Amino acid sequence: MLAKDRRTQLCVGLDPDPERIDGGAAGALRHCREVVRQTEEHACCFKPNSAFWEQYGPDGWKALTELHEEFPDTPFLLDAKRGDMDNTMKAYAIAVFRTLAMDAATVQAYMGGDSLEPFTRYEDRGVYVVCRSSNPGAEDLQHLEAGGEPVFLHVAELAARVNGHGNVGLVWGATALYAIAEVREVSSLPFLIPGIGAQGGDLRGAVRAAWNGDPASCLLSASRSVMFDRNPGRAALALRTEINNVLVTLP
Amino acid sequence: MLAKDRRTQLCVGLDPDPERIDGGAAGALRHCREVVRQTEEHACCFKPNSAFWEQYGPDGWKALTELHEEFPDTPFLLDAKRGDMDNTMKAYAIAVFRTLAMDAATVQAYMGGDSLEPFTRYEDRGVYVVCRSSNPGAEDLQHLEAGGEPVFLHVAELAARVNGHGNVGLVWGATALYAIAEVREVSSLPFLIPGIGAQGGDLRGAVRAAWNGDPASCLLSASRSVMFDRNPGRAALALRTEINNVLVTLP
Repeated sequence: MLAKDRRTQLCVGLDPDPERIDGGAAGALRHCREVVRQTEEHACCFKPNSAFWEQYGPDGWKALTELHEEFPDTPFLLDAKRGDMDNTMKAYAIAVFRTLAMDAATVQAYMGGDSLEPFTRYEDRGVYVVCRSSNPGAEDLQHLEAGGEPVFLHVAELAARVNGHGNVGLVWGATALYAIAEVREVSSLPFLIPGIGAQGGDLRGAVRAAWNGDPASCLLSASRSVMFDRNPGRAALALRTEINNVLVTLP
Repeated sequence: MLAKDRRTQLCVGLDPDPERIDGGAAGALRHCREVVRQTEEHACCFKPNSAFWEQYGPDGWKALTELHEEFPDTPFLLDAKRGDMDNTMKAYAIAVFRTLAMDAATVQAYMGGDSLEPFTRYEDRGVYVVCRSSNPGAEDLQHLEAGGEPVFLHVAELAARVNGHGNVGLVWGATALYAIAEVREVSSLPFLIPGIGAQGGDLRGAVRAAWNGDPASCLLSASRSVMFDRNPGRAALALRTEINNVLVTLP
């Protein structure tokens, strides 16, 4: 990713919403193209959320492919949360890394270590494992205590175990920062932290908790608060600056 | 589903594999159309595996849409294992139940009860929650002991909790039948049991363990062993008959 070169940890989410953008998939492409243009200098990557593109059917997939082709040198991370096994997971990896040519993707770990290998074997792509989500229901399973530690810590350990190629990270919701330090204790994996904008996550806390000295150690992602701002470039710059202002206070 | 009318519990998986079918997405459509035609009278539903269609890019989505449109009265269950939260999960539900007009889908529960509600609120559609997968790595997280019971039982209980509309079931790999009775003790939810063909699961054991007297209580799914048979109709009939022969021995 471009975090170091561009001095930014900001990842801009691309979640086109048919209720807010007219013109179907063509409208989504037009809107997101403009967002990428205006925010590119402030972002280290873009995070299209697969669900929002899938809503449009085949045209949505085509629009996403076109969008990525228009910005070939900009890293794209597909937020798809794929989770399956064997040759199914292999097919998802082909869909994401070859057909859509994404640079990174998010995945679910419930099916275990071997289910992630079809993604992690793409050594030059990033794989972010969902560890702790930011919704209230996150506690239902992620916080169950097993063998003296919560399930989310087992997931973090599992992610570290499949990190043989050094391309694995963790997805961590910005609403559960109190627990991020627990994960930092057992793992130095990079974090992808969505929800610093509209979901009301604490940006300063997120940066402080996740940072480990390496610019690649935390990506902070905002979606709606940037892409539906009247001036996405200004919104992205403001977040980038806010993040960098926290970073300069850290060791 | 048509389990009762057609006296069959067989679900036929549709996993087009570009390494085995020539002609790209058009070839996948042609092959799967023929499989559906030949097996329809023996199947209660078809289970397209989203990953395999996604490999083809926009053309794959288009082919899947066309396939479903050609058989409007046949139930289709999209094996997509979607798992996300809030408006993202809402967008996935729109993609699956509206755009693709599927009758049922598989989902991941790691994000908790509230993450499943955008799917379960579609009262006339089925939602199958991944509970126990059939791969070796299934034990990594699914078998962690939490509060005296394995995580997979917590998932089964969570699925039962979100079953307010009576449209929720469980995905259970055919390789872990020894544990299916544990789940039957805490839940009467229907099972979707993939892997009775190529994955080598024990068909008789699967039917015995999952059956609760209701034809809707278990769907048994075979994919490759039917769709790549020289005579898919004969392969489907054989499985259907084998299942029904077990059923007549049960109370």
